[in-house]
Amino acid sequence: MKKINVTIWNEFRHEKTEDAVKALYPDGIHAFIKGFLDANEDMNVRTACLDDPDQGLPDALLEDTDVLLWWGHMAHREVSDALVEKIRKRVFTGKMGFIPLHSAHKSKPFAAILGTNGNLSWGRDQKEIIWNMLPAHEIAAGIPDHFLLELEELYSEPFFIPQPDELIFGGWFEDGHIMRSGATFYRGAGKVFYFQPGHESCRAYYHPCVQRIITNAIRWARPNDFGFAIEDACPHVTWKTTDEFDA
Amino acid sequence: MKKINVTIWNEFRHEKTEDAVKALYPDGIHAFIKGFLDANEDMNVRTACLDDPDQGLPDALLEDTDVLLWWGHMAHREVSDALVEKIRKRVFTGKMGFIPLHSAHKSKPFAAILGTNGNLSWGRDQKEIIWNMLPAHEIAAGIPDHFLLELEELYSEPFFIPQPDELIFGGWFEDGHIMRSGATFYRGAGKVFYFQPGHESCRAYYHPCVQRIITNAIRWARPNDFGFAIEDACPHVTWKTTDEFDA
Amino acid sequence: MKKINVTIWNEFRHEKTEDAVKALYPDGIHAFIKGFLDANEDMNVRTACLDDPDQGLPDALLEDTDVLLWWGHMAHREVSDALVEKIRKRVFTGKMGFIPLHSAHKSKPFAAILGTNGNLSWGRDQKEIIWNMLPAHEIAAGIPDHFLLELEELYSEPFFIPQPDELIFGGWFEDGHIMRSGATFYRGAGKVFYFQPGHESCRAYYHPCVQRIITNAIRWARPNDFGFAIEDACPHVTWKTTDEFDA
Amino acid sequence: MKKINVTIWNEFRHEKTEDAVKALYPDGIHAFIKGFLDANEDMNVRTACLDDPDQGLPDALLEDTDVLLWWGHMAHREVSDALVEKIRKRVFTGKMGFIPLHSAHKSKPFAAILGTNGNLSWGRDQKEIIWNMLPAHEIAAGIPDHFLLELEELYSEPFFIPQPDELIFGGWFEDGHIMRSGATFYRGAGKVFYFQPGHESCRAYYHPCVQRIITNAIRWARPNDFGFAIEDACPHVTWKTTDEFDA
Repeated sequence: MKKINVTIWNEFRHEKTEDAVKALYPDGIHAFIKGFLDANEDMNVRTACLDDPDQGLPDALLEDTDVLLWWGHMAHREVSDALVEKIRKRVFTGKMGFIPLHSAHKSKPFAAILGTNGNLSWGRDQKEIIWNMLPAHEIAAGIPDHFLLELEELYSEPFFIPQPDELIFGGWFEDGHIMRSGATFYRGAGKVFYFQPGHESCRAYYHPCVQRIITNAIRWARPNDFGFAIEDACPHVTWKTTDEFDA
Repeated sequence: MKKINVTIWNEFRHEKTEDAVKALYPDGIHAFIKGFLDANEDMNVRTACLDDPDQGLPDALLEDTDVLLWWGHMAHREVSDALVEKIRKRVFTGKMGFIPLHSAHKSKPFAAILGTNGNLSWGRDQKEIIWNMLPAHEIAAGIPDHFLLELEELYSEPFFIPQPDELIFGGWFEDGHIMRSGATFYRGAGKVFYFQPGHESCRAYYHPCVQRIITNAIRWARPNDFGFAIEDACPHVTWKTTDEFDA
Repeated sequence: MKKINVTIWNEFRHEKTEDAVKALYPDGIHAFIKGFLDANEDMNVRTACLDDPDQGLPDALLEDTDVLLWWGHMAHREVSDALVEKIRKRVFTGKMGFIPLHSAHKSKPFAAILGTNGNLSWGRDQKEIIWNMLPAHEIAAGIPDHFLLELEELYSEPFFIPQPDELIFGGWFEDGHIMRSGATFYRGAGKVFYFQPGHESCRAYYHPCVQRIITNAIRWARPNDFGFAIEDACPHVTWKTTDEFDA
Repeated sequence: MKKINVTIWNEFRHEKTEDAVKALYPDGIHAFIKGFLDANEDMNVRTACLDDPDQGLPDALLEDTDVLLWWGHMAHREVSDALVEKIRKRVFTGKMGFIPLHSAHKSKPFAAILGTNGNLSWGRDQKEIIWNMLPAHEIAAGIPDHFLLELEELYSEPFFIPQPDELIFGGWFEDGHIMRSGATFYRGAGKVFYFQPGHESCRAYYHPCVQRIITNAIRWARPNDFGFAIEDACPHVTWKTTDEFDA
């Protein structure tokens, strides 16, 4: 089977300016994620950053991407609308899966693809426990009924997303909050998986369960082996049952 | 508009045998719920108990019930299969809404109607916070973004229910657990709303938000004004477009 | 109960330029829909057209609208992005329900609110039969198991919408096609109902079932009686269980 | 990867008593399906029939089955309740996927697992066109936007199933009817895919798209690689965040 071309896009700002973040992710969150994904022989993993040429995603790379991971936070507005439109179109036409991570809940592509303002409440870093609510799902493969993140930024309901197609993980936070933490959304002919953990100053991406979930999600989100061409248009059809099939 | 005929079915055992429960709900949980529902002029509220004749639900009452609330715990197995079958059929044919409360997650009608074994994990009574995850829903009308139950029995994910049609409320528990606490399920031509709070030794039913939610849910679950007869059968149809419509 | 402020927005172009359309809807589709909605005492119905000042929706009217119906076709691109953004925000913050009709599947607000490119296939006007797939739903109240539209524009699957929260109606077309014809989508704190019939040169809006469905949908989509303020922001929260509740 | 142990259960009555059926499926529908599944190296395919000892499913075989296909029609009532209960439990605890075919919509395990009476309308054999409504889904891999079955028994909406988790295929019928023809349902820790074509006197199982869909569905429905034990019980939990995780 053809390798999955994965591109990890990262805003890559916190890691340059904040010592605590740099200490955790010295080469950037993107590089850290690539680090654990590279072990998968079925994946071909690349990275891209906001401050790279073409905001990291020149057409040649975007058009060669099967699954796009997206980490952004403080610079959502800097992402060009034209790039967002290309991403949206690529997902809707089934050419690419999309995996927004953590603060990408307020990113432009998340809003454009899902139909949401991405609003939630947030607060201090604290203990989070992730619960496995749909163990039958491919993205939950190998994940226990719950696991602990010693420290993660509080993200809380109400989270104004569309009801997920599949709600797989839920988060419990020390201060009294809960969160839909891992959820899938079919959009057009593409697939989206949002995963909440991953604050820049916390160690979520070090956790083996988080690594497994992201790995599973990439495999789940890869474009399907479509049996027909997915157009970006509303085709006019002229055939009738009798014409087409009775001949 | 015709009043909604509500029947509150209660196992009514704990309240007779345990002093703490008797102190909270001296006439039974059913009587307490009837107490706050009676204020609604659009409802005609009756109660029924397991130890009543016909297990509380003679045909005359069941067939006059628009919405059935169900509270059971220690005596699930005593409920007759024939009665469960009547309830199931009535819900599926759109004659009755069904609102299983708290430990009814392991009741026979819940399993038969939903398609679940109703399994979850449970533990000691503790603080619960209920979060409002779908404020647009009629059942969430008037409910704040969250509210506190000082003491409620721990019910925890993984909760092996089918994915709800609408997940409205989620529960946070002090010891580190979460729970899908309020959820709707369309079944046949009927509607189901499961609501988790309501342990016999706790005061959930005293809480104004809990009372409002149950009140809202009854209005939501009432049978629809159907535009055609919902049969309990698989009708053989002989019409064709051309026959029926072109005449 | 407060009346529902309904605004029917119409592109209102076909009715001015095409005789066949003018014959059916001489004052515009918006006026025709207003005609049958005016019989509802719980509704206060207004109309708005693309060529009116502020594209028909000055802030004063938009901010006074509880449910917005939208009919557009040939001039989708003329609708200003700023207006689309206001509509989107109003729906997401639960201030307004949104009912896109027929060719509004390719309108800007439909795409922005739902997360879709709205693509489908289309063809010649022909016989359509609408099937009632979720009779328990409020929007299906009073609707038979199926009804016939003698002539309606062919709209066909694959329809690249997100999976609906509730799929209520499905369409059968003479030439061999099917369509998800009536479907709900929760978005933010708002509600959306898409309804497929309504081609400008066909008589769908004359049909009593179509009129009943639109009437039902307006009642269903009205803003909820929220128990808390729905902000257009990500609030920072500082309370903890112990702080807020134990005091 | 371990092979998928597939068991095809068939009532196997029509094929013995009706010449037309015997002509199409001389060794039974089960044998025919096994015929095209055997080409898949990742599957180990067995068959079982109602009139075999233990109704075809002795514990040893059932407990060795990863995915169970079920074809039944005239003898639904003969299937023992004890066997249905074993099947239901095995699906809910994630040990087995379940693929009910065609008239299995009225079978006992379908009703027990899904929560439905399985009612639909039916009529004469006629032309059916299957539409692909969720091309992104694994079960739709390789399937065109539509395909034709020259002759299939009419199955029509309203089909009183719970709303599917994923609605993948829809059917158009010559006489004016539509049908949700291919749909997934998560139940407990297991997965269910219902597929409507497959009347005993028609050639659906000869169609390459039908064969591909069933093949895809088996791979999709296989038990997950669970990260924890799925019990058939409601475990009492005593751990607290502080106990378990702070040590």
